[in-house]
Amino acid sequence: MISSSWQPVRFHHAWELAEVAQKAFGSLDLRHPLVAEMHRWGTLHISGKLQVLQLPKHYDFQGLRLTPAQTRARLGEFGYANVVAFQTRNPLHRVHEELTKRATQEVDGVLLLHPSVGMTKPGDVDHYTRVRAYKALAAGYYDPNRILLALLPLAMRMAGPREALWHALIRRNHGANHFIVGRDHAGPGNDSTGQPFYGPYDAQELLQRYSSGTQVREQYLNQGRTLPPWFTRPEVAEILAETYPPRHRQGVCIWFTGLSGAGKSTTAEVLTVLLLEHGRQVTLLDGDVVRTHLSKGLGFSKEDRNTNIRRIGFVAAEIVQHDGVAICAAVSPYRATRNDVRNLIGSEHFVEVFIDTPLEVCETRDTKGMYAKARRGEIKDFTGIDDPYEPPAQPEVTLDTVTHTPEENARLILHYLGQHGFVRMPTGMMQNGIKI
Amino acid sequence: MISSSWQPVRFHHAWELAEVAQKAFGSLDLRHPLVAEMHRWGTLHISGKLQVLQLPKHYDFQGLRLTPAQTRARLGEFGYANVVAFQTRNPLHRVHEELTKRATQEVDGVLLLHPSVGMTKPGDVDHYTRVRAYKALAAGYYDPNRILLALLPLAMRMAGPREALWHALIRRNHGANHFIVGRDHAGPGNDSTGQPFYGPYDAQELLQRYSSGTQVREQYLNQGRTLPPWFTRPEVAEILAETYPPRHRQGVCIWFTGLSGAGKSTTAEVLTVLLLEHGRQVTLLDGDVVRTHLSKGLGFSKEDRNTNIRRIGFVAAEIVQHDGVAICAAVSPYRATRNDVRNLIGSEHFVEVFIDTPLEVCETRDTKGMYAKARRGEIKDFTGIDDPYEPPAQPEVTLDTVTHTPEENARLILHYLGQHGFVRMPTGMMQNGIKI
Repeated sequence: MISSSWQPVRFHHAWELAEVAQKAFGSLDLRHPLVAEMHRWGTLHISGKLQVLQLPKHYDFQGLRLTPAQTRARLGEFGYANVVAFQTRNPLHRVHEELTKRATQEVDGVLLLHPSVGMTKPGDVDHYTRVRAYKALAAGYYDPNRILLALLPLAMRMAGPREALWHALIRRNHGANHFIVGRDHAGPGNDSTGQPFYGPYDAQELLQRYSSGTQVREQYLNQGRTLPPWFTRPEVAEILAETYPPRHRQGVCIWFTGLSGAGKSTTAEVLTVLLLEHGRQVTLLDGDVVRTHLSKGLGFSKEDRNTNIRRIGFVAAEIVQHDGVAICAAVSPYRATRNDVRNLIGSEHFVEVFIDTPLEVCETRDTKGMYAKARRGEIKDFTGIDDPYEPPAQPEVTLDTVTHTPEENARLILHYLGQHGFVRMPTGMMQNGIKI
Repeated sequence: MISSSWQPVRFHHAWELAEVAQKAFGSLDLRHPLVAEMHRWGTLHISGKLQVLQLPKHYDFQGLRLTPAQTRARLGEFGYANVVAFQTRNPLHRVHEELTKRATQEVDGVLLLHPSVGMTKPGDVDHYTRVRAYKALAAGYYDPNRILLALLPLAMRMAGPREALWHALIRRNHGANHFIVGRDHAGPGNDSTGQPFYGPYDAQELLQRYSSGTQVREQYLNQGRTLPPWFTRPEVAEILAETYPPRHRQGVCIWFTGLSGAGKSTTAEVLTVLLLEHGRQVTLLDGDVVRTHLSKGLGFSKEDRNTNIRRIGFVAAEIVQHDGVAICAAVSPYRATRNDVRNLIGSEHFVEVFIDTPLEVCETRDTKGMYAKARRGEIKDFTGIDDPYEPPAQPEVTLDTVTHTPEENARLILHYLGQHGFVRMPTGMMQNGIKI
């Protein structure tokens, strides 16, 4: 409820933004995610007394969602004078487990394992996966008389040392009188301007060295390697492996772009068969499928064509999210629209294949007689004739259909996918070059 | 090429169909898949001399695709007088392996492992999965001097004994002089009218007993159990497990249907969160998502509304194929269209949830003022007012939103999914009934 004392406050945006950014984040650097986000905030701020009418409803992990009062009450039941709080936005590995146990022991208290489950940094592990891992860990590896697991619905601000202090205050309100602060607490990655807020525990150096989530994903999970037990408890490793399957079971979108008649569908069809041979599930979204299932009702205006491309991109993104392979073959003439699709899917899982067939070759092929019609003016806005085709600036793969057959080209893409881990290649065959 | 001697032959359809069906399949029973299919064939047949201009191009498993002449030549290189051919359209388990080895030993010959990779019976394992399993088996468990693996691009006719004879003739043309015939070779399941064509090998009884693919899927793969090594080689078990993950990692579509304002989206949103909590990947296709990404360009005619529903169904089917969860929340008033979507996705992976909120309740809620507009005639063809809503005849789940909250209803669906294996429930919680 907004009480009558709430006052909308209109700031002079540019000036205030700089001041707030400097005060909260110590930086105006746009590479800081929150500073960048502030530029999208409105100019109207409101302030006043808060009155709780109803707390936000959460449906997931309800048993772990405790208010500050509930947390204090539950902590009180443990019967220890000291409570050590541990904030985290990452999965807990063995080193974190030891750190928290050691801290609890040192103060002879109880641990409040208090992960934040609001918005985190892009690339962080989603909270559903993390909380399942925390639960497994708390249930299997801690003394039940010494731990309380509760969730804090708090978005990370990535404000470094200031955020650490704030986090500590919040935990004090939840009943903790000790707070574990790690190196680079709430640091916004490489572009952080906050200095590390060093805490009093020796294990920090170790924590820093082994707690890189990126490293965990790249060196272990993406390659289907199980996290070793000295590093992560097996229950946690299993939960992480489910969310981050090895790369050959991760989703990928292969996006063909090129003029009509360039050879997109033909190459895409061969590639589909080759990927099925290699044990991947594939959805082929080419002209026929799209016309039948997705594009009815859309015309040939630039806007409708962009809608069509974005729609294919939306379906492909969902397939990739579910770890499938989406092969899309559409002219997709506009660079900006293709880049939108790349951003939607995520560049790491997007392979843009430019079928670089010259217009005159496409026009000679002209299997559907479309170029002839366009030249006669019977079709308007035909790509290559009276509408531009914008070739990709940096496609992952460029193919030549004049000197190579569709099969050779499909095998080039397969080779690329194999090199990037999206397809598991028989080891013997890899040595023979691309003919697999 | 069709030579000049080719003659189109126009049959009197009904009469010929009966004769051909009786001669080839010994039955007019429409439950025989090929007899049923014949009813969709045209009335014009052509006959004449065949001349090979070009063989069909296959891109997958090219090293295994041998013509009869190539097969004979390769078999000749083994230096044995006898060749035993084994036809199969299923994965090979240990019992098949023993059978083929024993037959090869008995005739002191070489084995032609000759699976058919054309169209098989619905429900059979796709050929990509099978061939990867055959390769693993041939490479790891047979004497390389005694086996040739080659693929036969032949569609199964399910003609029982006649097909067995035909299969034997084909293998003779490929250089084999012995052919293993199992019980119920090429039998079209329970509705087959062909009598078992008993062959000369003792292992048949065993083969029959243990070779049920359905049993393998239901009792082992769907439950995430590894096929035991006495039954299936581990390499084969792994390949099958990839194609048939345990049910809690298989795709499923939860399709909400009900009047506008019935509570579909609200319940779907809670269900989404609960499924994420339980470790499933979910795509929610509700009104907002569909309007933004899929339905632009479609209007409110019955045809356009059906197109919209089928489009959502298409996207859901792709997600389910990639083992994801698709939650769809659309009025979807017509029973026939919903059943089309069910058939597209496959009934085993389709959960129809009927939100059975009475019209007067929906009209009272009327959060968007749509019912009022429809009553005033400002909107035409509004479901429940001047366009019918056809309730599902046998929905998997029916929900009452008058006496139950969205959360209670979402947990009912979660419980249903847990009971059917699509969600893994913590064991302790299952005993407490539906509150999980």
